Amino acid sequence: LLQRETGASGRAVRPPVAADEVSLPDSALPGDVRARLAASGGVREDREARLAHAGGKSYDDLIRRRAGEASAAPDAVLLPATAEAVREVLRICSEAEVAVVPFGGGTSVVGGVEPLRGDFSAVVALDLSGMDELVGVDEESLTATFQPGIRTPRAEQLLSERGLTLGHLPQSYEQASLGGYAATRSAGQASTGHGRIDELIVGLRCQTPAGELVLGRGPASAAGPDLRQLVIGSEGAFGVITEVTMRVRRLPAERRYEGFVLPDFAAGQRVLRRLAQEEALPDVARLSDEGETRVTLAMAGGGRAKSAALGTYLRLRRVAGGCLLILGWEGLPASVAFRRKAARRALTTEHGVSLGRSAGEAWRRGRFSGPYLRDDLLDHGILVETLETATSWGQLPQLHAAVRDALIDALRKDGRAPLVGCHLSHVYPTGASLYFTVLTGAEPGAEIAQWDAAKRAATDAILATGGTLTHHHAVGSVHAPWLAQEIGEVGVEVLRAVKARLVPAGILNPGKLLA
Amino acid sequence: LLQRETGASGRAVRPPVAADEVSLPDSALPGDVRARLAASGGVREDREARLAHAGGKSYDDLIRRRAGEASAAPDAVLLPATAEAVREVLRICSEAEVAVVPFGGGTSVVGGVEPLRGDFSAVVALDLSGMDELVGVDEESLTATFQPGIRTPRAEQLLSERGLTLGHLPQSYEQASLGGYAATRSAGQASTGHGRIDELIVGLRCQTPAGELVLGRGPASAAGPDLRQLVIGSEGAFGVITEVTMRVRRLPAERRYEGFVLPDFAAGQRVLRRLAQEEALPDVARLSDEGETRVTLAMAGGGRAKSAALGTYLRLRRVAGGCLLILGWEGLPASVAFRRKAARRALTTEHGVSLGRSAGEAWRRGRFSGPYLRDDLLDHGILVETLETATSWGQLPQLHAAVRDALIDALRKDGRAPLVGCHLSHVYPTGASLYFTVLTGAEPGAEIAQWDAAKRAATDAILATGGTLTHHHAVGSVHAPWLAQEIGEVGVEVLRAVKARLVPAGILNPGKLLA
Repeated sequence: LLQRETGASGRAVRPPVAADEVSLPDSALPGDVRARLAASGGVREDREARLAHAGGKSYDDLIRRRAGEASAAPDAVLLPATAEAVREVLRICSEAEVAVVPFGGGTSVVGGVEPLRGDFSAVVALDLSGMDELVGVDEESLTATFQPGIRTPRAEQLLSERGLTLGHLPQSYEQASLGGYAATRSAGQASTGHGRIDELIVGLRCQTPAGELVLGRGPASAAGPDLRQLVIGSEGAFGVITEVTMRVRRLPAERRYEGFVLPDFAAGQRVLRRLAQEEALPDVARLSDEGETRVTLAMAGGGRAKSAALGTYLRLRRVAGGCLLILGWEGLPASVAFRRKAARRALTTEHGVSLGRSAGEAWRRGRFSGPYLRDDLLDHGILVETLETATSWGQLPQLHAAVRDALIDALRKDGRAPLVGCHLSHVYPTGASLYFTVLTGAEPGAEIAQWDAAKRAATDAILATGGTLTHHHAVGSVHAPWLAQEIGEVGVEVLRAVKARLVPAGILNPGKLLA
Repeated sequence: LLQRETGASGRAVRPPVAADEVSLPDSALPGDVRARLAASGGVREDREARLAHAGGKSYDDLIRRRAGEASAAPDAVLLPATAEAVREVLRICSEAEVAVVPFGGGTSVVGGVEPLRGDFSAVVALDLSGMDELVGVDEESLTATFQPGIRTPRAEQLLSERGLTLGHLPQSYEQASLGGYAATRSAGQASTGHGRIDELIVGLRCQTPAGELVLGRGPASAAGPDLRQLVIGSEGAFGVITEVTMRVRRLPAERRYEGFVLPDFAAGQRVLRRLAQEEALPDVARLSDEGETRVTLAMAGGGRAKSAALGTYLRLRRVAGGCLLILGWEGLPASVAFRRKAARRALTTEHGVSLGRSAGEAWRRGRFSGPYLRDDLLDHGILVETLETATSWGQLPQLHAAVRDALIDALRKDGRAPLVGCHLSHVYPTGASLYFTVLTGAEPGAEIAQWDAAKRAATDAILATGGTLTHHHAVGSVHAPWLAQEIGEVGVEVLRAVKARLVPAGILNPGKLLA
């Protein structure tokens, strides 16, 4: 079906090269620096470690990995076990002028962990996976303090033993780290109800070459600018986050997911806008546009997820042209009941049709499977990538149309348009995010150029139509050239001034955030 | 009653000097600078304008004003009408090395508008009251854009004509400006429900000597650090805010305020913590400690407010030793009903007693009268001042006791303790704010030294017990010496680096925020 729809060749995009066939340059790390680093903690220069830290998870990353292109792999991988070891690494690398790329789960899709060396002769990946402890829990204040390298499943396991949950679930959550969430200003699938990472973080510690930042002395403060919000989203360019204290919740007593169909995308937007402005939002809200039904089906690669998506698809056929809406409520029964009642009222006004709990549960079960399908799609010659933005409710229709058109125009080939789907999945009183998924036949030999042209066109359209450069994927190296359009030249100057003061040698994550 | 309780002399503290008897130094503004500034907008050097901008509204400010102490008055008052005029002022004053103190409503209680000249030979107050328009409203996205000098009553009037409200109501709201709220990171009496100013601002424009910052492209973004949160709370030290776009709400369909009495402060805290953690908070929540009953009575100076407070007081006598709790709900009937039901459940668990709507309405009617009583109290020889902080729920009891003890120890005289009351009035899932009111007999001739010693003791206690330096009064000149204890030396360095880049000549608000 997908081959027919996308015009894909069916032949694998860049059939993977075996790891031992990848040619890897010798490490450029000077021997004396290596020795000093080894004294401060683990240093790996083996092939496996260097390849595993050669990039993130964007389409371009996957293509490079398949092609065996590893010329940019880091010269070494450092594995500090303590904040003191991180400080020591920063001291040594500042003196030796070695670039340092902080590495959490490695799930960046915007080049955030690309081992760029900038003007430096060597680059190391600073892998924080060895710092993965739950430091402490304040059960009265409902906060939990973690080391930065902890993965979400482990954090949730440790919290659930105390009846608590973090509830921050990006699609990358199985691999992504909590420190990485903070560094990249992430949002999860339940952020509509639970809040973005910048709302969940009450305190943090960040090691910079100029010293340690310890921020967050209460639930709120007027003691000058909120410097937590300067570290959150700093993408390892200002320092290395070594501790985060986050708001947690009690495990929900009730959980209910339901599917609905709305007559069109605009009607669905009115439902979500009303719930946001009435402060009766569900925890999860995901409204697909007309195009996403086809993309959803195309993305549903295997097993349970496939059949669930297919079921949803078939039910949708009975209401052709409509838009799928998934709503999920979690919490105390009274809260679920209040918010669900508000949703039913809004849905009735907009002629929504219920698909019942099975559609909601099908989505919930399959919601993390997307990333696992990407290699399968590549094996069948299909380009698959996503991008996202956010804007005000008033501007949303123009933004949606402009990005969709830009992607279709850029990827149209031989008269065949790509499949472009979109959903609205993070809802605020003043606006919402839009998340686009693109599927089309990959251009053999020119895969990266093909996607990069589409990405440039879409990003230009986003900024021309009042959208933000990124709602939750961060800046990395991919978005850095557009940052001045988002925050202005003066805004970029502010970030440069902060970096110059905190990282005098400039070693931290060159080329990320700041181009 | 108050004289008896506080041991006050009954004689006026520093009986006010008539305005024309105040000796005011000649303006130090060079003639050529004055001429250039006059070309860019209004310049006033008259006695009335200079005296009106000589300070804010702290106890120390009131004492200085009464004493006719105006040696620090600004050399001139500038009244720009446009953002371009503000830019021009910053250009001229940067070149001429004249200090600029941005001035909104002049209600700072922490020396935020003190006309300090730092190392500069002259200082001007930049009064933004001429920029007080509603620029535009997006009724779909529920946002409104204002010029910075607009006062809250005018903003609310213009919004209410469209069925909208801002709902940001600090006790200073009649005089304070929206730009001032943003610059000082303020909170209002309904911020528990409506959010702090940093949560209400979706976009802003700020003129700095290095150029204009235009921030906020959507309801949320991951495009690097959130620079809005660096401007909010920057207290005019980085630039002059010339436009704010804020979230607004529809006027509430229902409004209900009620009073309750809880057995003790801890029980009241458990009620509010539960509601916050269940996400069922009222819009207004104000829990007084045992001491505040007496302070509340003492503060209720005249007319309706007095009798209402007295009524509350007498009713409280029937539940001696208890703590007063005011809860207020505003919004759609379903939302009010849901949250009120949650409150009743929590109150029942903690053996709360209802005082009914009349107690709630009495508080609502009198809630802005406090500042008007201060001159009356001074006329009767009474020192009156407030201070505030916030911390986690777990730390709250220690913080409450430590600050209370510090104030009592510092102000005890001849065996008589001051009246110290406290309320908890901004509630979050992870913690809450504490707001202290102090009443005692003023020390004739040493009024400022008397209060400053108490303020120092209380602030040291706050920082030693895990509280934040300020929850909503800002830093100004008063708190600046403690800022490094809040955000660390590295945090202060970050702020200095930003200021150096945005304000190379250092002319903006010297001595505020950064000591």
